[in-house]
Amino acid sequence: MTVSTINDTNKESVIIIGTGSVATHLINHLLSIGTLVIQQYGRSKPIETKVPFTNNPKELRTDASYYIISVSDDAIDEVSQHLPRVEGIVVHTAGSVGIDIFESRFKNYGVLYPLQSFSNNRTINMLSVPFLIEGNSDQTEIKLLQFAKKISNNVYIMSYQERIQIHLAAVFACNFSNYMNTIAEELLKNKNIEFSLLKPLLQETFEKILTAKPKDAQTGPAKRNDKEIIEKHLKMLTNNPNFQEIYKLVSKSIADLYKK
Amino acid sequence: MTVSTINDTNKESVIIIGTGSVATHLINHLLSIGTLVIQQYGRSKPIETKVPFTNNPKELRTDASYYIISVSDDAIDEVSQHLPRVEGIVVHTAGSVGIDIFESRFKNYGVLYPLQSFSNNRTINMLSVPFLIEGNSDQTEIKLLQFAKKISNNVYIMSYQERIQIHLAAVFACNFSNYMNTIAEELLKNKNIEFSLLKPLLQETFEKILTAKPKDAQTGPAKRNDKEIIEKHLKMLTNNPNFQEIYKLVSKSIADLYKK
Repeated sequence: MTVSTINDTNKESVIIIGTGSVATHLINHLLSIGTLVIQQYGRSKPIETKVPFTNNPKELRTDASYYIISVSDDAIDEVSQHLPRVEGIVVHTAGSVGIDIFESRFKNYGVLYPLQSFSNNRTINMLSVPFLIEGNSDQTEIKLLQFAKKISNNVYIMSYQERIQIHLAAVFACNFSNYMNTIAEELLKNKNIEFSLLKPLLQETFEKILTAKPKDAQTGPAKRNDKEIIEKHLKMLTNNPNFQEIYKLVSKSIADLYKK
Repeated sequence: MTVSTINDTNKESVIIIGTGSVATHLINHLLSIGTLVIQQYGRSKPIETKVPFTNNPKELRTDASYYIISVSDDAIDEVSQHLPRVEGIVVHTAGSVGIDIFESRFKNYGVLYPLQSFSNNRTINMLSVPFLIEGNSDQTEIKLLQFAKKISNNVYIMSYQERIQIHLAAVFACNFSNYMNTIAEELLKNKNIEFSLLKPLLQETFEKILTAKPKDAQTGPAKRNDKEIIEKHLKMLTNNPNFQEIYKLVSKSIADLYKK
């Protein structure tokens, strides 16, 4: 990258703050769509860096159009204090953190929350990832909207209240449904049975969730209120109180929902 | 179907007992692979029947090679009392019911458990469905194995102890992970947000479960032990004690698992 390219005043430029998987996926995608990523800042240099890297806050450039802070939720506040009072738009990428965290520090700020679960070893089609945005002013929000629309075909302006509710829903849909499969995996491991035996069932479960509504797709002992099986299953889980409690509580919640 | 075909002594024949979705899927699949299904028995005649139907136990034929009892778990015992003491092999299709339920009544019996979630309005590729079988004798088990291998490419001889553990695992992997998505759907509905917003996240979650092990694919606040977000989410769930308890318990269980 030449200096003349970097200083091209007609083009928006981005600084990425953070070195985790969201930061990495964002850099790769921004570069792939031709966005200028002029710098990455973080505590320790990633093994592979495609843009100039610094771990020295004094070296942070102040001429970017966007500063994307992509660090863990509880580090956003601290990291933002390393940033000079820049003119560009400062955003974080967190689902459950308000934009007011930037209020006392920056003029133009907001959020750019990608509703996806990123892993270092997996590629993600960023163009289909929903990006939920919010800006501190109409002007900032419009700019952010235009910027986000270059990143993804799936951009929504969402208030803080909407965004945290979506994040909470995502914890159930992604983290907790993954954990139900982890429990299944552990139960099968006890009997030396491969988790892959469940794959056709998982495939069908997933396809039903996507085509039906999950509420209409519910099956199983709890939905049928089959007390005999439920009692048998609870007994089988005696050695694992956490799994037993989860079974009891989820079954009760399913029964309550379908009683209505 | 002509009488000469039905009485072809070289060919195995099947009677299906039950009219639910497993029974329906089995009939359709058996017919599609050229198996003789000579009768279906049930309380009330289905709208569409592809084989001779009766609801009169006295009309039940006694010349079938296999009698597949595909009714709800708690009805297996009662229904089997309607059956004369036949020579053919009597099986049920339940994950959590032993074969001893048939002990006092039949000579040859067992189980043919399809590890899948069947819905009336969805087609299933039965050839890929795992069938878990068990017979009351070696001879019966070998016959059942040969029969099941015509139905599916995915047949396993499994003991009762293995089968009920697999069924329990399937309740978590299928029913409970579906319910986590139902909760997500309900939470989004509260804010008039479409569940479909989560689809890219669900797709990625599912693909990770299939390629990684779910235990390795876990992400989220509970895995990171992010107490601040967990507290915030619990507060947001105050109006739904069931969801709040599930959130608390699943998060605790995740934290406990990854502490180890």
